[in-house]
Amino acid sequence: MYGYIASMRTKPGLRDEVVALLLEGLDGLRATGCRSYVVSACATDEDRIWVTEVWESAEHHAASLQLPETRAAIARAMPMLTGEFTSQESQVVGGLGLGHTASPNTREDAASRR
Amino acid sequence: MYGYIASMRTKPGLRDEVVALLLEGLDGLRATGCRSYVVSACATDEDRIWVTEVWESAEHHAASLQLPETRAAIARAMPMLTGEFTSQESQVVGGLGLGHTASPNTREDAASRR
Repeated sequence: MYGYIASMRTKPGLRDEVVALLLEGLDGLRATGCRSYVVSACATDEDRIWVTEVWESAEHHAASLQLPETRAAIARAMPMLTGEFTSQESQVVGGLGLGHTASPNTREDAASRR
Repeated sequence: MYGYIASMRTKPGLRDEVVALLLEGLDGLRATGCRSYVVSACATDEDRIWVTEVWESAEHHAASLQLPETRAAIARAMPMLTGEFTSQESQVVGGLGLGHTASPNTREDAASRR
């Protein structure tokens, strides 16, 4: 499984609006290989948003960014952002809240490790 | 809901061992208010581990650190770590993979926002 931890800064006062945009279309994410997607407001920077994601694979994540609804959401969000981003990729090994591969000990999860 | 994004570095070659330690006792986490817990291997630093967590509240997270099994796991991991940590707290708004509050639009989830 592929992990992605990202943050972005919004222009002052627009964080709630961007958070709402990021939370549209959750069902579509699930259908395209997303195992976990968490949107949160930074505790130490009132204009920063953190997004943590787990996908079946890096390819599933990349494909999701090409979906028409994702591209439309990004286009709507961009004018509200400062352009300050951080991102970190990882190989997810296991945990809770990852759908049908939540346990690292199942055969299916072992097969999906990268 | 309370979010916590952390990383730690292990001494060379010990990452897999620490990851395995971090994945022990998942059922105990769920029982103590953990909604999501993802352990992953950093894609850009072969000795770094990322852990992203979502808890019912900051108090639930703090309480979990006092559990005997958690304290024992930390004691076992510490000698394998370099002491380089990062951490970020956040207020989780919604997403996928958060158990029974996965949708930001349910009444229950709205009540649990902090």
